[in-house]
Amino acid sequence: MADEFEWIKSIAPVKHFNDNVQVGIGDDAAIISNDSNRETIVTVDTMVEDIHFKRRTMPLQAIGHKALTANLSDIAAMGGMPRYYLVSIAVPKQGWSQQEITDIYGGLHALAEKWHVDLIGGDTVSTSQKLVLTVTVIGTIESGRRLLRANAKEGDVVFMTGPAGMAAYGLAELLDKGLKANENTTISPFIRAHQYPEPQIEAGRLLAESKMRIALNDISDGLAHEAKEIAEASGVNITIDWDKLSLSKQMAKYALEKQMDWVLYGGEDFHLIGTVSKENSVQLANTFKTNGLSFHVIGDVVKGEGRVYIHHNGKKEPAKKAGYHHF
Amino acid sequence: MADEFEWIKSIAPVKHFNDNVQVGIGDDAAIISNDSNRETIVTVDTMVEDIHFKRRTMPLQAIGHKALTANLSDIAAMGGMPRYYLVSIAVPKQGWSQQEITDIYGGLHALAEKWHVDLIGGDTVSTSQKLVLTVTVIGTIESGRRLLRANAKEGDVVFMTGPAGMAAYGLAELLDKGLKANENTTISPFIRAHQYPEPQIEAGRLLAESKMRIALNDISDGLAHEAKEIAEASGVNITIDWDKLSLSKQMAKYALEKQMDWVLYGGEDFHLIGTVSKENSVQLANTFKTNGLSFHVIGDVVKGEGRVYIHHNGKKEPAKKAGYHHF
Repeated sequence: MADEFEWIKSIAPVKHFNDNVQVGIGDDAAIISNDSNRETIVTVDTMVEDIHFKRRTMPLQAIGHKALTANLSDIAAMGGMPRYYLVSIAVPKQGWSQQEITDIYGGLHALAEKWHVDLIGGDTVSTSQKLVLTVTVIGTIESGRRLLRANAKEGDVVFMTGPAGMAAYGLAELLDKGLKANENTTISPFIRAHQYPEPQIEAGRLLAESKMRIALNDISDGLAHEAKEIAEASGVNITIDWDKLSLSKQMAKYALEKQMDWVLYGGEDFHLIGTVSKENSVQLANTFKTNGLSFHVIGDVVKGEGRVYIHHNGKKEPAKKAGYHHF
Repeated sequence: MADEFEWIKSIAPVKHFNDNVQVGIGDDAAIISNDSNRETIVTVDTMVEDIHFKRRTMPLQAIGHKALTANLSDIAAMGGMPRYYLVSIAVPKQGWSQQEITDIYGGLHALAEKWHVDLIGGDTVSTSQKLVLTVTVIGTIESGRRLLRANAKEGDVVFMTGPAGMAAYGLAELLDKGLKANENTTISPFIRAHQYPEPQIEAGRLLAESKMRIALNDISDGLAHEAKEIAEASGVNITIDWDKLSLSKQMAKYALEKQMDWVLYGGEDFHLIGTVSKENSVQLANTFKTNGLSFHVIGDVVKGEGRVYIHHNGKKEPAKKAGYHHF
């Protein structure tokens, strides 16, 4: 690859969306000023070639898009607005051209531009084998408004901001049909969910702005696992009603076990799961509708000690342990 | 490796040094409150196995120590105080035990504890081959006090807070002697500089607190290269006086070209290089002496357009292009 310093200049932004950026790329570190009535949210996420993505199923821009989505989604799950990001990339010495790396940044930039998130720093290094992409995102939230996992209470309902299992089914669809990465973004919403998942920032903001007591997670590690995190952090049990989960016609054709694998245990979807009091859930459903967003109740918070149960056909079964994770 | 979520609990801190940590490890993202009179500094740095470190020359704790040092040094080079850090690690599926990864974190933790920097987040993933360690550090600095590369002016002197070439010589020493990673931290200050380099946070703070106009960099990419970054950002030339660079007896035994390779172009040292007016340099030298820190003048800022020259034996030669970098 060409000179690191020249290349960095080529991907560095020429302007910033946020006036708070005092120093962006180009010095030892970035400097941002803070608004006194806001807290800072920080998250970092790493994607590794052939572990978190395969070039066979992911266009280059999608790799950048998805890495940023994972982080923006963490900000959304706290109720915050993403503001700044840093990208650290370890590029294999062979097999990747400079243009291909620039295309990954193209995917990052396009999504960042949509949400007015400023690239303020990063690191570019080489490695011997697999590409490793680490994105750090910094966001803000009005002081005291953060939406934590520990906020659930007995009697709450469990809600979601959209369907689960989309990305897992999309990946299965790609592999089943033997499709290549670049042929199919318009073919199916499932493949799109696998390649270009969208962070639910607007939904997170509506929830934070409601000033209600809300527990919130994204479902990136799988619906059942993320529900369990809320249950454990809040010291309650959660029951998910299988019949309330919106299941697509395509998925419904498969055996129930396979459907559950996608919907309950599949990862890399970025809708939000949360809990709120029954009374407030009605108001939230209206607010979401007014804003053209989806909100549906999928279960209940009951007395307990951190367990998740799935209700189906009159039976209550414990969710399988853990969800989708890469380690 | 054992379950990711259990392991994360084992390395998560049980208390925080900074009261500003509202949410640390354990939710979707970390949340920190901000002091109204301070700005936020952010930096990220990645170290790759066999590119930035070899297990042959680096004890496990040293790998963590050095990764954090690289970031703390960037904060120091802005004049700031490091406050929080996040660690993202991609662990090869084979060849690394859980204990070895815990030891890397031990190196991170020990240095973080020294500077009261709180671990507030991270990501743990697997990879197929080489370990990749990415550290993000967040620091603070009093509003308006940041020390930028662009601050140098004609007539300034160039100073350093310690010797250059230590780490490069230390690595050469290790390889020459065929030493293994764990046998030698007490043998030589050079090997120690390679394995356990110290960020110059106190020096950076003295410089920021002086309220003088100071341009500042760390020398992590090599003295000549970092001087050039200051020269370019400030629109001046810099001359380095070779005879003013403190050279150790050990290095002095080698051919001049080899000495210059270590001292001018060797990377991974973390002393600071800066410029300040001649008058203020005297006061700074005193302040540093009072605080038991090193401060020595090594050159001058002259009219020019971003070039660096080395003075030696009455001759002025341009520094070689670029310094030490890994991409």
